Amino acid sequence: MNKSDLSKIIEVGLLLSSERNLEKLFDKILKTSREVANADAGSLYIKKAHQLEFISSQNETLEKRFKIDGNRLFKPFPLALTRENIAGYVCLTGEILKIKDVYHLPKDTPYSFFKSFDNRFEYRSKSMLVLPLTDRDGHVIGVLQLINAKDENGETVSFHDNAVKALSTLASFAAISLKNAMLSQNVKDAHLSTIYRLVNAAEYRDPDTAYHLERMSNYSRIIAEQLGYDDEFLEVLLYASPMHDIGKLGTPDRILLKPGRLTVDERSIMEKHTIIGADILKNPDNDLISMGRSIAMTHHERWDGKGYPEGIKGEEIPIEGRISALADVFDALSVKRVYKEAWPLEKVVALIREERGQQFCPYVVDAFFKGYEEIQQVYSKFKE
Amino acid sequence: MNKSDLSKIIEVGLLLSSERNLEKLFDKILKTSREVANADAGSLYIKKAHQLEFISSQNETLEKRFKIDGNRLFKPFPLALTRENIAGYVCLTGEILKIKDVYHLPKDTPYSFFKSFDNRFEYRSKSMLVLPLTDRDGHVIGVLQLINAKDENGETVSFHDNAVKALSTLASFAAISLKNAMLSQNVKDAHLSTIYRLVNAAEYRDPDTAYHLERMSNYSRIIAEQLGYDDEFLEVLLYASPMHDIGKLGTPDRILLKPGRLTVDERSIMEKHTIIGADILKNPDNDLISMGRSIAMTHHERWDGKGYPEGIKGEEIPIEGRISALADVFDALSVKRVYKEAWPLEKVVALIREERGQQFCPYVVDAFFKGYEEIQQVYSKFKE
Repeated sequence: MNKSDLSKIIEVGLLLSSERNLEKLFDKILKTSREVANADAGSLYIKKAHQLEFISSQNETLEKRFKIDGNRLFKPFPLALTRENIAGYVCLTGEILKIKDVYHLPKDTPYSFFKSFDNRFEYRSKSMLVLPLTDRDGHVIGVLQLINAKDENGETVSFHDNAVKALSTLASFAAISLKNAMLSQNVKDAHLSTIYRLVNAAEYRDPDTAYHLERMSNYSRIIAEQLGYDDEFLEVLLYASPMHDIGKLGTPDRILLKPGRLTVDERSIMEKHTIIGADILKNPDNDLISMGRSIAMTHHERWDGKGYPEGIKGEEIPIEGRISALADVFDALSVKRVYKEAWPLEKVVALIREERGQQFCPYVVDAFFKGYEEIQQVYSKFKE
Repeated sequence: MNKSDLSKIIEVGLLLSSERNLEKLFDKILKTSREVANADAGSLYIKKAHQLEFISSQNETLEKRFKIDGNRLFKPFPLALTRENIAGYVCLTGEILKIKDVYHLPKDTPYSFFKSFDNRFEYRSKSMLVLPLTDRDGHVIGVLQLINAKDENGETVSFHDNAVKALSTLASFAAISLKNAMLSQNVKDAHLSTIYRLVNAAEYRDPDTAYHLERMSNYSRIIAEQLGYDDEFLEVLLYASPMHDIGKLGTPDRILLKPGRLTVDERSIMEKHTIIGADILKNPDNDLISMGRSIAMTHHERWDGKGYPEGIKGEEIPIEGRISALADVFDALSVKRVYKEAWPLEKVVALIREERGQQFCPYVVDAFFKGYEEIQQVYSKFKE
């Protein structure tokens, strides 16, 4: 590599290793590697157990022709992990393949090129550079495939040997960054799973909560997204909102499990679950617990001040409390409970509209309706 | 930078960005930067809220003289974040400082050099290169300080301009890697905190569990470490073992909260907390839940087969169940409960020794005694 290639790789290395969002990282890997190799197209595969998953692609020619980005042409799909397809071959052998024309592979080549994509989109794949993404322990975790190197006139040519050298270093940074981002995603997924499970443990005493947490926390996230909050807020809200009823663990069986109506005294003990929840989550040592505490305390407050436990109103109620209040009620009404049938969605929606500015924050109600299509998808996905 | 410097930086960039363990990362940053600059010593500072924390150091001269590594000379300590000390100045201004001799700073220099370290260890700091560790958003997250560049004869000289260039790129990789590793540590810490809090929610019904989880999970980790398990296993065990009694959330108030002895029937319902716990954690989608499930199910089994719920024995009981069984009993006996006083540690230890090969796995008992000093530290730390 010459000095300018080396400097470019350093720049790319810094760019990739600082990206922790997986989707954005896929894009950056494809974009920078296509730039370095001057390639028209590229695809990224990730090894998953015994398959290879095609996860992302970019294709300048087709993006110009259809005026959409490459990933819209193709959904992620699993590929058999065998030596018979090009990506599988590279993943299993760890070899770098530099192919002049994939339509004219030598007879004894162990792998074949599948023309289905080309046929479908009237594209002509020709030169190819396919690199394993190998982590520091020597395990291949994915494959980077670059298609159709271009010369200065835009003609398709073979990949240059210099590009191979530069790309193989770039692939090392890509592999490390992917592995880091996937590991952090795993830790986050495990965290969310732990929260759902532990809070769902209350299910043993209150059998109505199955999937309530999954739905309610996703509704909350959608509403917050429509209100314009950033990714970090959305994530914390998604993780914190399942804790809204954690205080019910402190409610005695005789009240929590009582079949009929509660007396005034029993109701006031039941309402304490907000304060108990806030107490369980007191002295927060991170954003998640802090927001969980706020939600536990305020998810039964009302915009008009007629809620509990404090009867605060309007913007005195923190936004996460106003959001989770609506998400919680929408879910409670729209599904079946032991003591009641599910309401038809139209009836639930009518009530929410009616309570705009009364029970519910008007901005939150508006955001709810803006995100209503996505909310319905969550509703269908977790239907009991 | 010349080609060989650039190649070296790429190598260091790959090395640093693939290190996710914070302690190891500190070492690698100091080691590689000292190599590139040929520096005798180096220190690393991390910005924490309104302070700068000295977290790690290496010093070849002193390490040779005292035959111990640099971090043993110095414990991490906080430093005022002001422009009056060198690291604070660099952190606040983002400037790179290249100093010929810190004992002869020009009169108008805004910062001073503090000789306390030098005086204490009879060391002579002279040339210095101090770089801000700046993340991709332009925030300074720490400071890298290199001390006493050496020429080929081992004489202290000024830092070379080439080194400054290379080190500033290295510092970018160091900053990104540190930020990644610290963020993952935060996510992990938050996860553990969530587990303790949510499982502690049972405290509302069973007030005896305060700090029980923190102690018991740390005892488990120490025993597993003495048995030779790797860091990953230790971490999963630390996170999973607090869930051992999660099934108690399914135990009715009338039994869980009963002051006197339980009847045979009540006892058998109480013992169901193992099976209920395993059910709460069924269909595990990650290692943590999987081990939590195993521990919930088996932490009341006995080595001799006289435990519950299944009465399995010996190595039929998974190792995490055998470890948590001992950790749980040690904690239950060594602290005060509503219905009993704390036993003196000698009495608890005598019982454990007696039950070696009866109630408890002999290997686990041996590991307990090997780690007993550390176990006592945990005992003292979380004393109620």
